[in-house]
Amino acid sequence: MADPTHPQVYLLSDGTGITAETLARTLLTQFDDLIPRWHLKPFVRSLEQMEALFEQMRTGPQPALVVATFAAAELRTMLQRCPVPVLDIFSDHLEQLEGVFERTAHSVSGRAHGIGDVARYDRRIEALNFTLAHDDGLATGDIGRAEVVLMGVSRSGKTPTCLYLAMNYGMFAANYPLIPEDMTGDTRLPDSLRGLRGRLLGLVISPERLAQIREGRRPGSRYASLAQCRSECTAIDEFLYRERIPRLEVTHLSVEEIATRVRGELG
Amino acid sequence: MADPTHPQVYLLSDGTGITAETLARTLLTQFDDLIPRWHLKPFVRSLEQMEALFEQMRTGPQPALVVATFAAAELRTMLQRCPVPVLDIFSDHLEQLEGVFERTAHSVSGRAHGIGDVARYDRRIEALNFTLAHDDGLATGDIGRAEVVLMGVSRSGKTPTCLYLAMNYGMFAANYPLIPEDMTGDTRLPDSLRGLRGRLLGLVISPERLAQIREGRRPGSRYASLAQCRSECTAIDEFLYRERIPRLEVTHLSVEEIATRVRGELG
Repeated sequence: MADPTHPQVYLLSDGTGITAETLARTLLTQFDDLIPRWHLKPFVRSLEQMEALFEQMRTGPQPALVVATFAAAELRTMLQRCPVPVLDIFSDHLEQLEGVFERTAHSVSGRAHGIGDVARYDRRIEALNFTLAHDDGLATGDIGRAEVVLMGVSRSGKTPTCLYLAMNYGMFAANYPLIPEDMTGDTRLPDSLRGLRGRLLGLVISPERLAQIREGRRPGSRYASLAQCRSECTAIDEFLYRERIPRLEVTHLSVEEIATRVRGELG
Repeated sequence: MADPTHPQVYLLSDGTGITAETLARTLLTQFDDLIPRWHLKPFVRSLEQMEALFEQMRTGPQPALVVATFAAAELRTMLQRCPVPVLDIFSDHLEQLEGVFERTAHSVSGRAHGIGDVARYDRRIEALNFTLAHDDGLATGDIGRAEVVLMGVSRSGKTPTCLYLAMNYGMFAANYPLIPEDMTGDTRLPDSLRGLRGRLLGLVISPERLAQIREGRRPGSRYASLAQCRSECTAIDEFLYRERIPRLEVTHLSVEEIATRVRGELG
C-alpha cells in the first residue's frame, strides 16, 4: 500500500522527542504537497520497544520515515536494522562535534527536555509565574524585575509573546496594555515603568490585521471594527513616538518571530 | 585565542533559528564540561550579512561552530566558505528526504516558525486564550471544549503544562485545582467535569518535591510545610482513586516531559 502524499513519519526518541519533532516539521515545511501522518514515540528505552516499532513500520503504509534522536548508543546501533529510511540525528552529528570540541560525547538519555540543568529549569518556571502575574499590567509591585515590558493595543500579541519568552528562555517578560480611553494627547508613561527604559518595547500592528484578529474573538463588535482599530493604532503610535519607546512591527509575524526579534532588540 | 571549554556556537538561520537552537542545545547536552557562548543570528537573508558573520567568526575566539538552518539554497552554498566547522542541517538532510518522498524540496525561508499554515497558527493562539481563561478553574462556561483537563494540587505543574500544550500543539488544555479544604472523604467530581471523562488526568507529585517547590514560592509558610503537602497529596490521591481518574506521576518530570506524556495518554 503506497500513499506518497501521506508519508508516515515516526519520531523516535529516548527522551521527549521534541527535538526530533521540531526538526522533522522544519524539514517537511519544504515539501508543499505532503500531509504527513505523525507518530510520536517518546521515551523509547528498550530494544523490545524498538522491535515492536520496527514491526509496525514494516507492516504499515509506505512511504515511511524515521527521525530519531537517541542519546543511548545501543539504541542508535539498533537503528541500523530499521526497515524504513532513518534520519539519525545524533549519529549524523555527534561525531562531528566530538572533532570540533576534542572530547567524547556521553550517551545520556532525556537531557535535552528533562529537568536537566535544575537552575535553568527553575528559572523558566519562575519566569512563567512572573509573566502570568504581570499579564495585562495586573501587578506592578515587582515590575522592576522585568527584563522586557511589551506595550501595545489589545490583541497585538503581547501575552503569547511574553509567555513564549518566559517558557522557552526563562525571560522575565511583562506586558502593559494601552487602553484607548487612557490615551489622550498628553498621556505619559506610568511612573512604575519610567525606570525601565531600555526594556520597554512597543508592538505595532496594522489596523486591518488587528480588526481581523479581533473579529475572530468578538464578531461584529465595536471592539473589532476597523474604525476603532484605526483610532487605537494611531493613539499608541503617537504615544510610542512621544515617549521614544522603540517599536516592533508585528503585523505579519508569528509569536516565535516576535519573540526572536524581542531577544534581538535586547541584545 | 583558544578556549576549549567555552566554544562559540553560532546559530544561523534565514528564519527564527529556533530549530537550529533546539538541535544545538540537544546535541550539546551530551558534552558535560562545555559552557558554550551562544550567538543567535536569526533572519540572515543576504550574502552581505553572511560575509559580516564570517568575519566575526574569523576574528573571534576559537573553537567555534556554526549550526545553520537555511532554506534558501544560495545561502547554503555560501556556507561552504564559512571559516569554522558547520552543521548544515538542511543540506545534510533535505536531499535524503527528497529521495524518500520522491519529490523536490522548495527553498522557502521562514516557514517553520512563521505564521505559515494560518489555520494551525490561529488554532494555537485560540488554544492559548482558552487555556488562560480556564487557568485554575477560572471559567467553566465552555469547559466542554477542553481536550484535556489537568487536576492536581497547587504547584503540581498544571498551569505550565497546559500553556505548553496550547502554545506548541494548539491543544485546548484546562486545569482544575483541587483545594485541600474542599477535599473531604466524599468529595465528588464537579458536575461541569462529569461529561469530560477520558479527558481528565490527575498530576501526582511526591509531598517532598511539592514542599521544595512551594518553599521556593513562600518560604517558611504553612502552605510549603511538609505536613500540609502530605495531607494534600493524600487527599488528592484518594479523590483520584475514588473517581477513577487516570494518574500521571510527575515528581521528576519537566514541563516538556509531562506534556509529552499527556499527549501520549490522550492517544
